[in-house]
Amino acid sequence: MHALLGFLGARTRKRVLFIPYAVVEEEYENYTAIVSQALKPFGLDIIPIYSFRNPLGALRSPELEVLFVGGGNTFLLLKTLQCKELLQTMRDLRWRDMAYVGSSAGTNLACPTIKTTNDMPIVWPSSLDALNFLPFQINPHYLDADPGSTHRGETREKRIEEFLKVNKDPSYDVIGLREGSWLTSENDRATLCGTTGAVLFKQGEKQRELENGVVIL
Amino acid sequence: MHALLGFLGARTRKRVLFIPYAVVEEEYENYTAIVSQALKPFGLDIIPIYSFRNPLGALRSPELEVLFVGGGNTFLLLKTLQCKELLQTMRDLRWRDMAYVGSSAGTNLACPTIKTTNDMPIVWPSSLDALNFLPFQINPHYLDADPGSTHRGETREKRIEEFLKVNKDPSYDVIGLREGSWLTSENDRATLCGTTGAVLFKQGEKQRELENGVVIL
Repeated sequence: MHALLGFLGARTRKRVLFIPYAVVEEEYENYTAIVSQALKPFGLDIIPIYSFRNPLGALRSPELEVLFVGGGNTFLLLKTLQCKELLQTMRDLRWRDMAYVGSSAGTNLACPTIKTTNDMPIVWPSSLDALNFLPFQINPHYLDADPGSTHRGETREKRIEEFLKVNKDPSYDVIGLREGSWLTSENDRATLCGTTGAVLFKQGEKQRELENGVVIL
Repeated sequence: MHALLGFLGARTRKRVLFIPYAVVEEEYENYTAIVSQALKPFGLDIIPIYSFRNPLGALRSPELEVLFVGGGNTFLLLKTLQCKELLQTMRDLRWRDMAYVGSSAGTNLACPTIKTTNDMPIVWPSSLDALNFLPFQINPHYLDADPGSTHRGETREKRIEEFLKVNKDPSYDVIGLREGSWLTSENDRATLCGTTGAVLFKQGEKQRELENGVVIL
């Protein structure tokens, strides 16, 4: 929370346009209330996108200071943005002086594609291309392999290695972001923050540990 | 293994057409060798689909007795079948006297769609529609929620509940199949086998436990 306020506070941005589309529609209000309650004491005003008659206008408004895309199901988030025809306008925000905050599915959305999400494909978007705010893929909630596990599904490491093998043109690095870590990115510099570190997967290279504080870009 | 032999043996089917497309191409031969080695002592001959110059012909051959679709990444499996234009011919096999065996991704493929896979969407198929051999969805490697977990990704239960909420037309039940359980289906009867049971999720109902031996259809 303090990190978020540090990131936003430096800009004294207080109005947050909130997108809860990663949860099912009947949960929008509930989710917005939870986020609102958590951020209000810090002077942040949460304005949900569904409260606008013209959401495209809200995204294009020069008053837009912070865009917060919440967590949930990444496929549902992307498909909803596609269906509401908001995605391209959101992509164009990268040229604006505006802060983007994403948690979980919102983190996946900031990447070139959502191909490294952990979510279940409960709906099928028309494409997996996302906002492309970052030049690499993130795998949030990264879990290290447990050698003692009897679970026979693939480890996260194996999934990401397969992603790299079948995505060579274009190829993107993947950052496995553990719980307790986050990335901040500003002026083409991305920095790993938090306490748990992350794992960097690069095409044709052995994966390696990233320490907190490291500048990724 | 004995269950598999029981399922196949009753028909004295010994030639198994094997589809390893859920793994990356450079692993086809290795995966086929592993499966072949495991099944050869039981008199089963594994013939990989990539050994045919005309794979469509192999699928349409009256000599086809058993089709075995192996595990790996479900998106990669489905996309490869789509690209090789084999999917519709495989769907038509439901009208044939033929045994289908699927493990993990191969299990997802037997369902109406692959929307309840656990896999990472490392490639993007043109649709999530699968073979539709079964009238319900399976979530393989089902994991019960761990109340002590600090992991903040969604539980399997929550993911499946969301699937049900956003897929109402058509709607399908979902069977969460734990490690150590499997389904056999014959003459429109599906039976839960193994030792660990499964969980049944139905639209608008509370999830309930399925005991081994229960007839699902």
